[in-house]
Amino acid sequence: MSSAKELGERKIIELILECLDQMPNPLIPFGDDASAVDLGTDKLAVINMDMLVGKTDVPRTMSLWQAARKAVIMNISDLAAKGAQPLALLASIGVPPNLTKTDIQQIGKGLNAGAREYNTYILGGDTNEASDLIISCMALGVCRKHHLIKRSGAKPGDYVAVTGSFGKTASGLKILMNSLSAPENSGELVASVLMPKARVKEGMILAQSQATTASIDSSDGLAWSLHEISRASNVGFHLDKIPIAPEVERFAKIHGFDPVELALYGGEEYELLVTIKPKLWQEAKKAVENVEGNLIKLGRVTEEKQLLLQTDGKLVSIEARGWEHFKTA
Amino acid sequence: MSSAKELGERKIIELILECLDQMPNPLIPFGDDASAVDLGTDKLAVINMDMLVGKTDVPRTMSLWQAARKAVIMNISDLAAKGAQPLALLASIGVPPNLTKTDIQQIGKGLNAGAREYNTYILGGDTNEASDLIISCMALGVCRKHHLIKRSGAKPGDYVAVTGSFGKTASGLKILMNSLSAPENSGELVASVLMPKARVKEGMILAQSQATTASIDSSDGLAWSLHEISRASNVGFHLDKIPIAPEVERFAKIHGFDPVELALYGGEEYELLVTIKPKLWQEAKKAVENVEGNLIKLGRVTEEKQLLLQTDGKLVSIEARGWEHFKTA
Repeated sequence: MSSAKELGERKIIELILECLDQMPNPLIPFGDDASAVDLGTDKLAVINMDMLVGKTDVPRTMSLWQAARKAVIMNISDLAAKGAQPLALLASIGVPPNLTKTDIQQIGKGLNAGAREYNTYILGGDTNEASDLIISCMALGVCRKHHLIKRSGAKPGDYVAVTGSFGKTASGLKILMNSLSAPENSGELVASVLMPKARVKEGMILAQSQATTASIDSSDGLAWSLHEISRASNVGFHLDKIPIAPEVERFAKIHGFDPVELALYGGEEYELLVTIKPKLWQEAKKAVENVEGNLIKLGRVTEEKQLLLQTDGKLVSIEARGWEHFKTA
Repeated sequence: MSSAKELGERKIIELILECLDQMPNPLIPFGDDASAVDLGTDKLAVINMDMLVGKTDVPRTMSLWQAARKAVIMNISDLAAKGAQPLALLASIGVPPNLTKTDIQQIGKGLNAGAREYNTYILGGDTNEASDLIISCMALGVCRKHHLIKRSGAKPGDYVAVTGSFGKTASGLKILMNSLSAPENSGELVASVLMPKARVKEGMILAQSQATTASIDSSDGLAWSLHEISRASNVGFHLDKIPIAPEVERFAKIHGFDPVELALYGGEEYELLVTIKPKLWQEAKKAVENVEGNLIKLGRVTEEKQLLLQTDGKLVSIEARGWEHFKTA
């Protein structure tokens, strides 16, 4: 019988989902960035949970402080994708027996730093003995019922846009893991891996703008996230461009990588990918800029369920590939 | 420098808490069963997170289905202790590479069973590759602001009471782990370990009754939980009796154990330990019986901060001992 290693992360999730009864009329379906619960007022509780495992999610050059902070950021990013304001966090920690007092303090400080950056707090949790370092966080946020953005609302003709450029974490990981040389002035490539940011202000303002029809965070990679919205909204995409950071272009050139490949098929990049009503585009872009963010148009939502990118004068298909644990390569 | 193994679980929690900024005016302080967040209405979101680790929390005779169900129950029990109604659960799972498809389905079905028993649902989560089996759950509940019960409200003169008898899990664990023989008709001892129950109806009705001044679940053992209320409320206890299940008395007799020891210093027993205003005792007891529960009086809250038990005509001190991971015995 297949082992977890052969099944892969997505098949495992599918197997578990098949065992779960669905809440009647869920506000957000299974598999979205976060879940929402009606509290009987006009506000929804938005909750999310995401686990960081030392041996698979933490490059050797990442400190425990950075790992703990990242465990918080990746949860906050999922709230951001739903336009929710983060209110509180909890953390359950699996502690390998050989961690020192200083190691544990670094974890505590990293958790706190991540929470305070987004004006929230770690309210509780627990610790346990474990073989791996495990930092399992959950985030609670709140949003108004009519502001909640799902993955399923994209309509043909909508613009598709992102809150930043891509390819930095894929490049940064290659620098950290494969010891590849970094171009000059490219500290952002490594920083994108070690010190990710969540797009909370952008997510909240996009939800409030009423312009946004679908939203996801790009933590599983841009290509995978496009496919997720495609699947949930039953639409396709025609992209005219992918915003690639100049450092990524330089890094790709030095080492002979395709920068578009780095941008599309990376992961752990916490930008938001959204679809926007064309009539409200200027308004949405302005709103995001007012909170010191960016909204960069990539192209259009199409009725035909193909995911295409115009690049160097030709149309290429965007594959449903992305970061996945377990799967033997 | 001390390792996690030498520090022990409680010292590790303390080290982490020292690193965390406190939310101003928290509704529930750090270290209570659960945390509460004001949603700006008369309702509070009550959240809790607790991790089950295969190698330390799952006896070999416990199935994966039972382990997953238990991971849910222990989180629901913490909501019960705060009088909150469970609304939703999330689960992050660390999957060892050798688990089979059937194993994973057993985990999914166990999670679902635990959630559905308490009329709630698993709404989401994630899975990750890990060396140990990790089932990290969070529970979201709701309660009215003025119904929230902390650990800190016990007043001298209050009655102290529990929702069931004690010693079953300590006996059950000895039967399972040390292969000790069980007395006849004592299936409940092992069942208390493999199929724990949370006291949700009892917790909710006690919160609504306005009789309850403090509440905790007894998952760290009865003695430890008494000490927690003592510390949080700055009071002591004078107990006249401890309710011990008849099966526990029989088991203790066969093997020469002290049944009071089994009842006080066990753990993983999900009863509620509460303090009750004496004037409202009858009302509270009646209310709990109306939801098919029990409320058993143990004794009184005292001003003097000693924890004493009257047993066999003498007064003995209740020690601050209980279940703790990590600590080398």
